[in-house]
Amino acid sequence: MLGTLENIRVVLTQVSHPGNIGAAARALKTMGLGTLVLVRPRQFPHPDADARAAGALDVLRRAQVHDTLTAALEGCVLAVAATSRQRELRHEMMTVRAAARELLAQAASHPVAIAFGNETSGLSREEARLCQVWACIPANPEYASLNLAAAVQVFAYECRMALPDSVQPRAPEFEPASHEQVEQVYQHFGKTMAHAGFLDPANPKRLLPRLRRLLARARLETEEVNILRGFLKAVDKMRR
Amino acid sequence: MLGTLENIRVVLTQVSHPGNIGAAARALKTMGLGTLVLVRPRQFPHPDADARAAGALDVLRRAQVHDTLTAALEGCVLAVAATSRQRELRHEMMTVRAAARELLAQAASHPVAIAFGNETSGLSREEARLCQVWACIPANPEYASLNLAAAVQVFAYECRMALPDSVQPRAPEFEPASHEQVEQVYQHFGKTMAHAGFLDPANPKRLLPRLRRLLARARLETEEVNILRGFLKAVDKMRR
Repeated sequence: MLGTLENIRVVLTQVSHPGNIGAAARALKTMGLGTLVLVRPRQFPHPDADARAAGALDVLRRAQVHDTLTAALEGCVLAVAATSRQRELRHEMMTVRAAARELLAQAASHPVAIAFGNETSGLSREEARLCQVWACIPANPEYASLNLAAAVQVFAYECRMALPDSVQPRAPEFEPASHEQVEQVYQHFGKTMAHAGFLDPANPKRLLPRLRRLLARARLETEEVNILRGFLKAVDKMRR
Repeated sequence: MLGTLENIRVVLTQVSHPGNIGAAARALKTMGLGTLVLVRPRQFPHPDADARAAGALDVLRRAQVHDTLTAALEGCVLAVAATSRQRELRHEMMTVRAAARELLAQAASHPVAIAFGNETSGLSREEARLCQVWACIPANPEYASLNLAAAVQVFAYECRMALPDSVQPRAPEFEPASHEQVEQVYQHFGKTMAHAGFLDPANPKRLLPRLRRLLARARLETEEVNILRGFLKAVDKMRR
């Protein structure tokens, strides 16, 4: 059952201060999560990271480094964006507690991820859109700026607290789609909508973000991906 | 109601690293707690404390300093000792979540406190005995050593989460689609999929039930209905 926590990948994008990477590694390990992934860290490895990691040097040493969030999310069936802001369009937004339950439900059988942005600017809009769920830590509206590693600690803590005390995880009835499969659906929709003359690629307006938001809420399964893409392929063969 | 959080005093005893005092001040303020009390800090004030406090310098400036935990707890009706260890038997031990509920219940009308020990040694036995409740953060038994400020963040977070629901994020406020609108989307998909040659109306198999299941999970909104039907109408005008 505790192996479930090991399926939770914590992704830190563009960290400015290497000390925060070490502190995040320590936060993960204290809660039983073991997978740290870094996207374009400013400085890594770094002595400050080692110092703040304390007894979690092993987590730090195993950390993978990627160039893009897309690469960091490969294979994940659910990605949660940690965000402090109410963003545009009100993408499905939940508390860290609710998001942890969603993560645990999937993590019993598949890799999942929580993505954190840079200390100052958070996740970019494009990065946040790669995640199906946006989750926030309820905070003081007058000062909601948690330290990055402190936010990682709260997310990791809620994941541990979401472990069921005794109940064994059930396999999901259907196979959830991977990050790459879902991104391919979005891209295919964009292409086919342009082909059908419904979307002007030069002026897509809000169409694709709205579609992304809809499908993110649905948590696509692999068979649904096949159905949607099969339909889009049939449309691709038609003529205007 | 939020004034309740201001009745929660966070007491740090014998902190070794002044940076942890600043990080704890920041953790408090992000969760809406405002009272920091220090017992015999090794170095305070200190530039490292200021640096790690970020936007919570006001909490740091207001911090009181005492010589004993007894003095720091004066006036409190409930004191919770944060501890990672199972100490001597029989003392009431609870999780941070349960302790936060106890604290909130009292803090509506009286000052209460959470006491944290030194980074290395924790609270002494004598100090812990001054507290009515001992509370721990459930952690990885193989490495349960949270950074001091990270532990303060989790306790402060649970205090905020113990507030009544009114301060939690609200659900999105888009106009949900009506039953009829959603049914029209299903029917339109069936017609257009047949038009595109993707679905044989005489032998539809499980396609439409699967699509229905997908869209039911998503809980369509009216604007999404308009987008999907607009796309389907554009496909209806195409030729195979």
